[in-house]
Amino acid sequence: MNSELVRKLYERIDALPIVDVHTHVDWKTGTAANIGDILSYHYYTELTNSAEFQHGEFPFGDPQELTRVILPKLALISNTVQHDWLMTISREYLGLDPDQWRPENWRSIFDRSVVVMDRPGWREELIARCNIRRVFLTNQYDEDLEGLDTTFYSPCLRTEPFTLWFERADQREGIGAFLGRPIRLTTDFCAGIDKVFAKFMAHGMGYAAMSIPANFQTFEVSDEDAQRLLDKMVGGTALDDDERRAWGAFAMNRICDACRKYGKPFHLMIGVNREVYAHGVPSGMDLFDSVNSMRGYDYLFNTYWDVRFPTALLSDTTGLELTAAAWIRHNVYPSGHWWYSNQPTDIAREIRRRIDTVPGKKSIGYFSDAYYLEFILPKFRMYKFELAVALAERMERSLIHPNMEPFRLDDAMELAESLLIVNPARILNIPGL
Amino acid sequence: MNSELVRKLYERIDALPIVDVHTHVDWKTGTAANIGDILSYHYYTELTNSAEFQHGEFPFGDPQELTRVILPKLALISNTVQHDWLMTISREYLGLDPDQWRPENWRSIFDRSVVVMDRPGWREELIARCNIRRVFLTNQYDEDLEGLDTTFYSPCLRTEPFTLWFERADQREGIGAFLGRPIRLTTDFCAGIDKVFAKFMAHGMGYAAMSIPANFQTFEVSDEDAQRLLDKMVGGTALDDDERRAWGAFAMNRICDACRKYGKPFHLMIGVNREVYAHGVPSGMDLFDSVNSMRGYDYLFNTYWDVRFPTALLSDTTGLELTAAAWIRHNVYPSGHWWYSNQPTDIAREIRRRIDTVPGKKSIGYFSDAYYLEFILPKFRMYKFELAVALAERMERSLIHPNMEPFRLDDAMELAESLLIVNPARILNIPGL
Amino acid sequence: MNSELVRKLYERIDALPIVDVHTHVDWKTGTAANIGDILSYHYYTELTNSAEFQHGEFPFGDPQELTRVILPKLALISNTVQHDWLMTISREYLGLDPDQWRPENWRSIFDRSVVVMDRPGWREELIARCNIRRVFLTNQYDEDLEGLDTTFYSPCLRTEPFTLWFERADQREGIGAFLGRPIRLTTDFCAGIDKVFAKFMAHGMGYAAMSIPANFQTFEVSDEDAQRLLDKMVGGTALDDDERRAWGAFAMNRICDACRKYGKPFHLMIGVNREVYAHGVPSGMDLFDSVNSMRGYDYLFNTYWDVRFPTALLSDTTGLELTAAAWIRHNVYPSGHWWYSNQPTDIAREIRRRIDTVPGKKSIGYFSDAYYLEFILPKFRMYKFELAVALAERMERSLIHPNMEPFRLDDAMELAESLLIVNPARILNIPGL
Repeated sequence: MNSELVRKLYERIDALPIVDVHTHVDWKTGTAANIGDILSYHYYTELTNSAEFQHGEFPFGDPQELTRVILPKLALISNTVQHDWLMTISREYLGLDPDQWRPENWRSIFDRSVVVMDRPGWREELIARCNIRRVFLTNQYDEDLEGLDTTFYSPCLRTEPFTLWFERADQREGIGAFLGRPIRLTTDFCAGIDKVFAKFMAHGMGYAAMSIPANFQTFEVSDEDAQRLLDKMVGGTALDDDERRAWGAFAMNRICDACRKYGKPFHLMIGVNREVYAHGVPSGMDLFDSVNSMRGYDYLFNTYWDVRFPTALLSDTTGLELTAAAWIRHNVYPSGHWWYSNQPTDIAREIRRRIDTVPGKKSIGYFSDAYYLEFILPKFRMYKFELAVALAERMERSLIHPNMEPFRLDDAMELAESLLIVNPARILNIPGL
Repeated sequence: MNSELVRKLYERIDALPIVDVHTHVDWKTGTAANIGDILSYHYYTELTNSAEFQHGEFPFGDPQELTRVILPKLALISNTVQHDWLMTISREYLGLDPDQWRPENWRSIFDRSVVVMDRPGWREELIARCNIRRVFLTNQYDEDLEGLDTTFYSPCLRTEPFTLWFERADQREGIGAFLGRPIRLTTDFCAGIDKVFAKFMAHGMGYAAMSIPANFQTFEVSDEDAQRLLDKMVGGTALDDDERRAWGAFAMNRICDACRKYGKPFHLMIGVNREVYAHGVPSGMDLFDSVNSMRGYDYLFNTYWDVRFPTALLSDTTGLELTAAAWIRHNVYPSGHWWYSNQPTDIAREIRRRIDTVPGKKSIGYFSDAYYLEFILPKFRMYKFELAVALAERMERSLIHPNMEPFRLDDAMELAESLLIVNPARILNIPGL
Repeated sequence: MNSELVRKLYERIDALPIVDVHTHVDWKTGTAANIGDILSYHYYTELTNSAEFQHGEFPFGDPQELTRVILPKLALISNTVQHDWLMTISREYLGLDPDQWRPENWRSIFDRSVVVMDRPGWREELIARCNIRRVFLTNQYDEDLEGLDTTFYSPCLRTEPFTLWFERADQREGIGAFLGRPIRLTTDFCAGIDKVFAKFMAHGMGYAAMSIPANFQTFEVSDEDAQRLLDKMVGGTALDDDERRAWGAFAMNRICDACRKYGKPFHLMIGVNREVYAHGVPSGMDLFDSVNSMRGYDYLFNTYWDVRFPTALLSDTTGLELTAAAWIRHNVYPSGHWWYSNQPTDIAREIRRRIDTVPGKKSIGYFSDAYYLEFILPKFRMYKFELAVALAERMERSLIHPNMEPFRLDDAMELAESLLIVNPARILNIPGL
């Protein structure tokens, strides 16, 4: 590693504004109210539960108590990049050095965090300081979006209630209530989707999104077959596995119809297996499967050739499959580095693959997946550093590579800007960027 | 990266002659006639179609028009290694710097390419300049091989018509026509294979080759079962999936019989899924599956223990499986870095795995997969650079590694020569090398 | 690579004592008697058989003759890390430089090895010189453990006779003989397991261990169902595939019951496919499957939440799955780098993943898998060097990484000690460490 060059590149990349194309930020609050909120992020509870087991139980309702309980355990995860994120939050926002994170200081850290985070204007200050330009959200179909600042936030529709959870009566009833009539016919179902899209469009919709189990299959399902499945669900009979797959495929196709009609992308997040760890903390029970093929999406990508599919993967083993798909398929866009693949080793490999073989305007560099705006900066820093390392390497290699012209600092910065700003802006059609 | 050492190593490796064990070169022409031919290579059409969609449609029949259409799009893929290959072709053969590749220059670039590539003696000049010693071809069983220069070209038999496409009536009829009688009995089928091998042997046969779908299975199939399948095909009834698998396994065994009889290797190219992208350019519709096991070849490798199997993989996830197979199996030879795995990230990893654990004389370093002789140089350069980086790293590590003797420049060059020349020459029994 | 820093780090890491949590050492002898014993290790016979085929046949019963036969072939594998291990043995123990390993010197090398290895006190000298503190063994349930030095060795129970081989009559009879009555009821089976655990506990049991085929499944199996399977086996009828899977799952659960009762870990070694290479040397016929999911262990990890599961993997494709499991699951501990993944490329990647995301006290750095004590040093050196490279990189990155505090030499050494000593000591509850 050429430290001097990496540092120089990092500094320039760090100066770029942040466009964050996937988060779980609650737009009504945006920021955390205190360090307990920050520590309630599943990374800290799951890692400390993993390091020192407490049956996944933490005082989640009491931020002070949570702080007191978790703080002594942080030493057990001090090697992790997630801990590094926390220390950046501490240094940059609270002005507290890492060496102050001692168990006996829990109250002063908590108090300090309240002074900083709970003050008026903190959100705006944070956004300005981190130079965040645009934040995409993850929203339920029936979430109240009135008052959403569409110059900053882009609401994105979580589609699982339609595709994966629709067999549950309460989910069907919720969608029926939203539509204004029970979902009895597939036309009701489509009307429900259409009404949701219309609502989201009125609030500057970003895209539709879905986090999808490993080895999901897409294929044509006729309305007649879907109606039969719907009748069965309404009648209270459980679907069998094939039927559940068929409903998932049908519903996903109908979401794609709406994406096509409204000209919006469908952001796929592929490969999560939900709730497999029985003793985990909330949001800390999910894993992935290394046996995971993207073949199940051939039908979708081909049929909805006019819909854009930014795609994120949980499994490292699918990394080259996504690269290859983006390399030849015009409507597949690699998007960021997700969850278990969101660490330096796997980010580094995928950055290089994508830079070397995917058309330069097609990759979306990164998203934070953050629950509070505070996490955006440290997570982007982690990515930007790996990007700086990769670009520095490319600069150095280009000087002696027999097939390459010199790849200069300006070239590197142009590529960085593409990944971080230009590409997400164009692929997701972000207004004002 | 120790740039000075890498450069020094690269220069020496670059001075080695080129032995290219797999191409799609048309031996009757060899080279391209103009830059339009070069740009018709699927990498350029697929990448530009992916970057700026045009339904996979390009004016393939008109090299000038193709040049005019593609040239403005090249900026969209200028980050890719495939673009780097093109720029090497431009610099080295046409004497044109990359900065001249502007849309408005399309005609002058085309004209220049005609002057260079369409002149008498260009092929010989290119071969001499690139120091290419031997080129293996990919040939249809019924291709006319009269006049083939066997001191330079080795014809290799594409076996898919026998193994994967035999259910199609036109394929069966073609093989029947070649044999001189319809294929009605499995003995006819075997006679057809034998006649093809005899023909290829008369023209300096390289090996039999097959590009194989993910998760292909090999197993014993009796003549009786195969005859039943043949009767069914001849009778015009479609095979079901199990039957299709059984025919594939049967036919592959019969090809192996012929390899054994004629003492020729069987080059396996594992893991392609054909025509999965519906809107792609010709040869740009294929992908691979990351869920791909080599277990299906246990029967083949064990039963045909006296047949050599050089093996190339499309999927990165099978890389260590191939390394392990070559490590213990005497008749499995890792061969090059294929297609989607033919980029720096995955080449780099597999080079290191193979160097560290596969007996040094068993790996075939690289093949170009080129359609025109012009592509051989830039593709080999890409590999040779990664090899230089890996060997430089090994040299540096050896100086401080507690288990290693110093690995010197001469040792590095010996390893490079093995990978690039000595091993392919011995494994494939190349005359004159 | 910062060679100076790597060297400095390596030297300090090398000075740490060795705790080897998995070997196949025969405690009654421990060391080899001569270089023929060393060369009988399957790495040398399988690699030379792969490089120059001899049908897997070597004069295994005659160490002198084996030395004479293998020595000329070693040049064919001189690039491999396994050859490097051998040269370390030669240099460090025999005082012979690598350049003395010429075919004509076979007898003098053999004789020299006898002088060194067959002398009284060699074992103690070797242990002192290599600074080996604790060695875990792999033991059959009926192995005589009387006289085992429990201050140095920890016996570990190989559980395959119960879980994978129980269908064979001789295996059932052996366990019945051990128990003192035939295994007719599942309660007999459980009593057999309990008696084995009690015996091993009396000799300082390390853990239960199992090397497991790819895609093994764990799930609840009732006693009634298991009794039916047992009746069938006792009656001499072969189990079908589902039944075999059910017995495997049942037996594994019963082993876990015993681990729970006796407070001992269960060391899983996942992903081996036995005897797939028909022409291999003994222990050189096994491979792995890149299509291998850890999902089959969800039941086990959840149900036996109070049992610790150190886990080693054969397949590189499962590396991030294990990292993720250890990241959130409190009772999964990544353990070393096994067999085909025990080479620099894959060790390097997994070290980084684990250091970046698994709580620091949860990873067991390495085990040697050695058959003779002589192999422990060179194998640990290989790992320690990769660790030094990773830690040096982390030190350098930390100086410019925007999320990190400086990671200093002391921090690096603390992490190295955790991986090599502190973690195995605590996770496996090693007395005296």
